[in-house]
Amino acid sequence: MTKRPSGRASDEGRPVSIEPGFARHAEGSALIRVGGTEVLCTASIENKVPPFLRNKGQGWINAEYGMLPRATHQRGHREASKGKQSGRTQEIQRLIARSLRPCVNLKKLGERTITLDCDVLNADGGTRCASITGAWVALSLALRKAKLTSVITSQVAAVSCGLTEAGAVLDLDYIEDSAAQADTNFVLTAEGGIVEIQGTAETSPFQDHDFFELLRLARLGTAKLFEAQNAALETL
Amino acid sequence: MTKRPSGRASDEGRPVSIEPGFARHAEGSALIRVGGTEVLCTASIENKVPPFLRNKGQGWINAEYGMLPRATHQRGHREASKGKQSGRTQEIQRLIARSLRPCVNLKKLGERTITLDCDVLNADGGTRCASITGAWVALSLALRKAKLTSVITSQVAAVSCGLTEAGAVLDLDYIEDSAAQADTNFVLTAEGGIVEIQGTAETSPFQDHDFFELLRLARLGTAKLFEAQNAALETL
Amino acid sequence: MTKRPSGRASDEGRPVSIEPGFARHAEGSALIRVGGTEVLCTASIENKVPPFLRNKGQGWINAEYGMLPRATHQRGHREASKGKQSGRTQEIQRLIARSLRPCVNLKKLGERTITLDCDVLNADGGTRCASITGAWVALSLALRKAKLTSVITSQVAAVSCGLTEAGAVLDLDYIEDSAAQADTNFVLTAEGGIVEIQGTAETSPFQDHDFFELLRLARLGTAKLFEAQNAALETL
Amino acid sequence: MTKRPSGRASDEGRPVSIEPGFARHAEGSALIRVGGTEVLCTASIENKVPPFLRNKGQGWINAEYGMLPRATHQRGHREASKGKQSGRTQEIQRLIARSLRPCVNLKKLGERTITLDCDVLNADGGTRCASITGAWVALSLALRKAKLTSVITSQVAAVSCGLTEAGAVLDLDYIEDSAAQADTNFVLTAEGGIVEIQGTAETSPFQDHDFFELLRLARLGTAKLFEAQNAALETL
Amino acid sequence: MTKRPSGRASDEGRPVSIEPGFARHAEGSALIRVGGTEVLCTASIENKVPPFLRNKGQGWINAEYGMLPRATHQRGHREASKGKQSGRTQEIQRLIARSLRPCVNLKKLGERTITLDCDVLNADGGTRCASITGAWVALSLALRKAKLTSVITSQVAAVSCGLTEAGAVLDLDYIEDSAAQADTNFVLTAEGGIVEIQGTAETSPFQDHDFFELLRLARLGTAKLFEAQNAALETL
Amino acid sequence: MTKRPSGRASDEGRPVSIEPGFARHAEGSALIRVGGTEVLCTASIENKVPPFLRNKGQGWINAEYGMLPRATHQRGHREASKGKQSGRTQEIQRLIARSLRPCVNLKKLGERTITLDCDVLNADGGTRCASITGAWVALSLALRKAKLTSVITSQVAAVSCGLTEAGAVLDLDYIEDSAAQADTNFVLTAEGGIVEIQGTAETSPFQDHDFFELLRLARLGTAKLFEAQNAALETL
Repeated sequence: MTKRPSGRASDEGRPVSIEPGFARHAEGSALIRVGGTEVLCTASIENKVPPFLRNKGQGWINAEYGMLPRATHQRGHREASKGKQSGRTQEIQRLIARSLRPCVNLKKLGERTITLDCDVLNADGGTRCASITGAWVALSLALRKAKLTSVITSQVAAVSCGLTEAGAVLDLDYIEDSAAQADTNFVLTAEGGIVEIQGTAETSPFQDHDFFELLRLARLGTAKLFEAQNAALETL
Repeated sequence: MTKRPSGRASDEGRPVSIEPGFARHAEGSALIRVGGTEVLCTASIENKVPPFLRNKGQGWINAEYGMLPRATHQRGHREASKGKQSGRTQEIQRLIARSLRPCVNLKKLGERTITLDCDVLNADGGTRCASITGAWVALSLALRKAKLTSVITSQVAAVSCGLTEAGAVLDLDYIEDSAAQADTNFVLTAEGGIVEIQGTAETSPFQDHDFFELLRLARLGTAKLFEAQNAALETL
Repeated sequence: MTKRPSGRASDEGRPVSIEPGFARHAEGSALIRVGGTEVLCTASIENKVPPFLRNKGQGWINAEYGMLPRATHQRGHREASKGKQSGRTQEIQRLIARSLRPCVNLKKLGERTITLDCDVLNADGGTRCASITGAWVALSLALRKAKLTSVITSQVAAVSCGLTEAGAVLDLDYIEDSAAQADTNFVLTAEGGIVEIQGTAETSPFQDHDFFELLRLARLGTAKLFEAQNAALETL
Repeated sequence: MTKRPSGRASDEGRPVSIEPGFARHAEGSALIRVGGTEVLCTASIENKVPPFLRNKGQGWINAEYGMLPRATHQRGHREASKGKQSGRTQEIQRLIARSLRPCVNLKKLGERTITLDCDVLNADGGTRCASITGAWVALSLALRKAKLTSVITSQVAAVSCGLTEAGAVLDLDYIEDSAAQADTNFVLTAEGGIVEIQGTAETSPFQDHDFFELLRLARLGTAKLFEAQNAALETL
Repeated sequence: MTKRPSGRASDEGRPVSIEPGFARHAEGSALIRVGGTEVLCTASIENKVPPFLRNKGQGWINAEYGMLPRATHQRGHREASKGKQSGRTQEIQRLIARSLRPCVNLKKLGERTITLDCDVLNADGGTRCASITGAWVALSLALRKAKLTSVITSQVAAVSCGLTEAGAVLDLDYIEDSAAQADTNFVLTAEGGIVEIQGTAETSPFQDHDFFELLRLARLGTAKLFEAQNAALETL
Repeated sequence: MTKRPSGRASDEGRPVSIEPGFARHAEGSALIRVGGTEVLCTASIENKVPPFLRNKGQGWINAEYGMLPRATHQRGHREASKGKQSGRTQEIQRLIARSLRPCVNLKKLGERTITLDCDVLNADGGTRCASITGAWVALSLALRKAKLTSVITSQVAAVSCGLTEAGAVLDLDYIEDSAAQADTNFVLTAEGGIVEIQGTAETSPFQDHDFFELLRLARLGTAKLFEAQNAALETL
C-alpha cells in the first residue's frame, strides 16, 4: 500500500486552528483553518422566522456557503456575477444547515433565525467539513452573546474520510480527494451520535466493512476537532 | 412500539411496478411506481461530452430531476416559471447522477453523454430513490438499444429507511417521512456494494447501531427492487 | 393532391382518450391522449386571487404549460434548469388561460383562483390544443368536487387545422405541422361559439376561403372532442 | 347601439402617420403614429444567421418588442430592470416576427438576419398592430439600402378590430380595447392574403358572422395603412 | 494642436433643444436633443416611498436609464431580453438619481417617490449628461403639475468635457469620446455649486491643472444648458 | 467646528497595513486593512483576452468586487443567492478596473487578462478605496511572479475625503461617511497624476474651493498609502 501524498498516517488529521471573533460585526464568528483550508464562519441572529414557521413558537437555522473566486488553484466564476449559485454550493449549504439544526433546541430558541455564513478564503479539500466545524463555534459564540447558551443540545464537528491508494484515511486534502475511490463526510456529536453521513463511491462501489472503518477514523478525527472548538470558545 | 401508518411490517417495502418504454421518443424510458409515488425516467444519448471531458476518450452521465407542480398535496411552484431550480432539486439531481455514474464504464462508453431525466408525476415519499431505481432501467434500455450493454458494470437501486415511532423501518412513505427522527437513503448494488449513503438526523442525533439496522433493511428492500428492474427489462 | 402522411382522411382527427383523475392529489385532473400526443392536465383551486383582483368579488383562471425534456424526438432543454420559460411556452400558457376564462362565470366563482397545469409527457403535434381540451375536463372535475359546477358557462375544446400538401386538413400531427403552409388553432364551444382563433401563414399568405374551410373542419373535429370530454366526466 | 367613445364611425380608423429615418444609425427605421399610439421601429441587418440555419443558404427575420415604462397611463415596470420580459412582450414579439417572415423570400435574402425592434414611446391601444405596420416600412428601407428590394414578396399591415358596445368596430383605441367583448388582430397583405389572425373572446364566446364582419372591417383598415406605408417610402 | 473632428471651438457645445411634454401620459416629460444625441426623459410621481423610508416623512427620487437597441451604430443587446442591465446602465442610472436628489427638498416633497426614466433614442456621445439635463426639466414639469414647485432647491445640468488631441474641449461627441485621454462629467447648479464630478483617465493619468480647465469649460457649457431648460419650461 | 467622531485630525488617515500573499493560490494577493476595513485582493492572470480584444496584441484588466454578507453591522443579502449583483457592486467593480487599467501598459502586457478580485471581509467605510490600494499590490505581485514588472507604468492608491460637520476631512470611516454632506473618492498616482475622481454632493451642492481642499487632503492621504504599498512589496 502506498503512502499518503502528505506523508500523514492514515488516522492522522491535519493541523486545526480556530480564531474566534474574526468578523467584528457578527454576533459570533470563527476563522477556521484545517491544513490549507481556511473558512470564515459567521452567525447572525435575527428576531424573526421564515414564513412557514410564523406563530409556531420556534426558531430556525439557515446556512449559506460561498467560495471566493481565487480560493482555488484556478480562478472560479464568482457566483454573484454569474447570477446563480451552483448545485454544489446549494448542496453544501443545505448540508451545513441540516448539520447544525439538530444541535439546537429550536423550541427553546424562540422566534429567532440564526444564519450561518461560511465563506472559503483558501481551499485545500474538506471545505464543507471545516465549515460545519467552524459554524458550530460561531453559533455557540452568538448564542453566548445572546445569553441563550442553554439552547445548544449537542456539540458537532465534521470530517471527511475516504478510500485512497493509501487505503482508508482520515481528513482528505485536495490531492487525495480528487483521486479517491470513495469520499465520505461524517457529522458527529461529542456525545457519540451521528447527525449526518454522506458517502459517495466516486469510481466504483465500496463495501460495508470499508464504510465501518471510515466511520471509526471519523470518530478519531472529530475528537481532535471537539478539542479545538472548546479551546476556541475559551479564548474569547 | 406503535404500528406504521400504512400497517406495513417494518421490513416491508411498498408495491413496485416498472413500465418500460413509456416515453416514446427516448432511447430508454421507464415509468416507475413505488406505492403512491410515480416517476417518469428517460435516458437520452448524445454523441458529445461536456467541455471538461473533450478529447479524453470517455463519456459522462448527467441527471435532471423535476416535480410536476401538482404531484404534491398542495400545488408547488413551477421551477421553470420561478426561474430557478430549488436547492432540493439540485441536490437530488446531483445524487441521481452520482449514483448511476459508478455503474457504467465511462471509458468504454466513449465520447457520449447520457442524460437521465426523472420527472415526478405523483409524489408520496421516496421520489429520489424511485428516480434512481427507474433511471437504471431507462439507462439499461438506452444502452441496449445502442448495443452498448457491456458498458454497464453494476445494477443499482435505491431505497429510503428511517427511524420512526414504529422503530427502524423500510421504505418510508410521505407520512412517515415527514415525522421521522432520521431519514437515510441507500443506493446499493446487486453485487452487495454501496454506491451512495445519505443519512440525516432530522430531530436528534442517532446511534451507530441504528444506522447498521437501517442498512440491513435497505439490503432487503433493494433485493425486491432488483427483481422488479429485471422483470421490466425482460418485458421489452 | 397527395395523401396525408398518416393516411387519414382530410376531415379525420386522431383517436382521443381522456383518463380522469390521473394526478391523485389535484382537485381535478385528466391525462389526455390525442394520437401520439399525451398531456397531463391538473386543476388546482386556491381560496385567494391575484393582487389586481383583490376585493372585487370575482375569481381568476391561470394556466401554466410545460414539456418534459424528452417528450420530443430530440431532448429539449429543461426550462427550470435554463432559468426561464421560452417565448413559445409563455405564448401557449397565455392561450390556455384565455381559452378557459370565458367558459367560467368569474363573478360566481368568487374569490378563488384555479390554476391549470398542462404538462406534455409525449409530443406529436397539437400539444396546445390537447392541453386546452384536457384542461376543460380537469377544470370541470375540480369544480364538481368543490360543488361549483354551475359556474361553468361553456364547454370548450381545441383542435388545429392546416393547409398542407394534402390540402386543408384536420388535426395536424408533428410531421404535417412542421411542413404546413398555414397552421390554425381553433378553440370552439359546444354551443357553436368561437373562443380563440390563432392562424399563421408559415411560408406564404393564405386566402379567406382557405380559412373558412379550416374553420369548418375544426367544427367537425371539436364535435368528437366534446364527446370524449363528456365520456370522461361520466367515468369518474 | 351606443356610439364609440372617440365618436368615430365603426369602419373609421385613426389618423396614421409614418416618419421614415427617425433612428439615424439603423439601416431602416420608421416612427409610426396611429392615433395616440407611437412606435419607433428599426430594422438592423447582420451578415450571419442563427445556429439552426447555418449553412442552409437562407436568411432569417427576428423581432423584439418593448414599451418604455411611461408609455402608459401608469408607469410600468422596466423589463430590463425586472430581469425578464413579460409573457405579453414575448407573445407580441413572436407575432411581429411571424408576420414579417412570410413577406420576404428567405432563400433570396441569403445568410443574413434582419432584426426588427419595435419600441412603444406612447401607447393608446393597438401597439402590436402599429409595430407590424411600421416594421414593414423599416424592413423595406433597410432592404432598399442593401439593394435587396427584390426579396420582398408581400406588403403587410395590421389592424385590430373588435366587438364593443358600439358593435363591430375598426381600430380599437385603449378605452375600447379594455372593455371589448372580443379583440381580433389581423395581419393582411396588400394582395388580399392573410398572414396572421389572432382572435380572442374576452368575456364571452362570439359567433362566426361576427368574425366575418371583423375581417371585412380589417380589409378596409389595412387599405389605408398600405397607402400610408407607400407614402412614407416615397418620402425618403 | 489638431482641430476637433466636428470643427467646433474647444469651448463650443453642441446645439441643444428640449421638447417638453413628449410623453403624453407622464406627469412631466422632455425630449432633449444635444447634437445627435436624443433622450426621452419622463418623471412619474407616486404617493409612496421605498421600504427603507417608510414613516420618515420624506420623499425619494429614483432613476432608470435605457438605450434602445438601435440607438447606436451597431445594434446592441436589448437588456430586457438578456435578462439584466449592464454595469454601465446601472452606473448611469445611479448617477442620474444622485444628481437630481440634492436639487429637491426631500422633506418638503413628503411621502412621494419620483421616478425619472431616461431612454436614449439616438446616441452620439454624452447620453448620461443629456439625461440629467432633460430629467431636470421633466422633474420640474411634474412638480409644477403637482403644485410642488417650491420643493425644487437647485437647477442642475450636466456636460462632459475631456482631454483630446485638440486639447481640453467642451461637450464630447461620440468620435471624441472614444479617443479621449480623459473624460469628465460635471453636474453643476445654476447657482455655481457642484453636485457630482466623475473624471476618468482613459489612457494615462492627467494633471490638476487639466482638471481645473475642464471644470472651467463645464461652467461655460452648463450656462447654455440652463438657458435651454428655462426656455423649455416657458413653452408649456 | 466639531471634532471628528474618531478624534482624528482632519488630515489624519487611519492606520494601514497590507499583508501580501494571503491567498495562497493566486498569482498575487494582498489583505489590506485600513482602520476597521479589511479587504482581500487577489490578482489572477490568464493567457487570453475578452472577445472584443482578440488579435489586437494587447491585454486587459478586469475587476470584481464583493462583500461578505456579515462584513457589515447588519447582515446583507448574499448577492450569489439573490441572483444578481447590486448596482453599487457593479459601480465599484467598474471603478476598480478603470483605476488600475491606466497604470499598466496594455500593449506590453500582451494577450493576457488580469482579473482583480476584491472581497470585503470587514467593512468600516472606504471599501472601494481600500480595494484599489490593495489591488495595486496584488497586481504588482502577480506581474512580478510572471516577470512582467516592466508593464507597470504608475503606482496608484485611493482615498476618500469628505465634507463633514468637522469640515473637510481625510479618509472617512463609516460613521462620517453616512452623515457627510459630500463624499469624494480620489485615485491618484505616486507621480502626482489623477486617475479617477468621483465626487458626490449627498445633501446639498458644494463649492469649487471645497473640492480643491479635498484634493489637497487626498494627496496627503495617498502619500502614506504609497509607503504602505512599497513596504508590502518588500516583505515578500
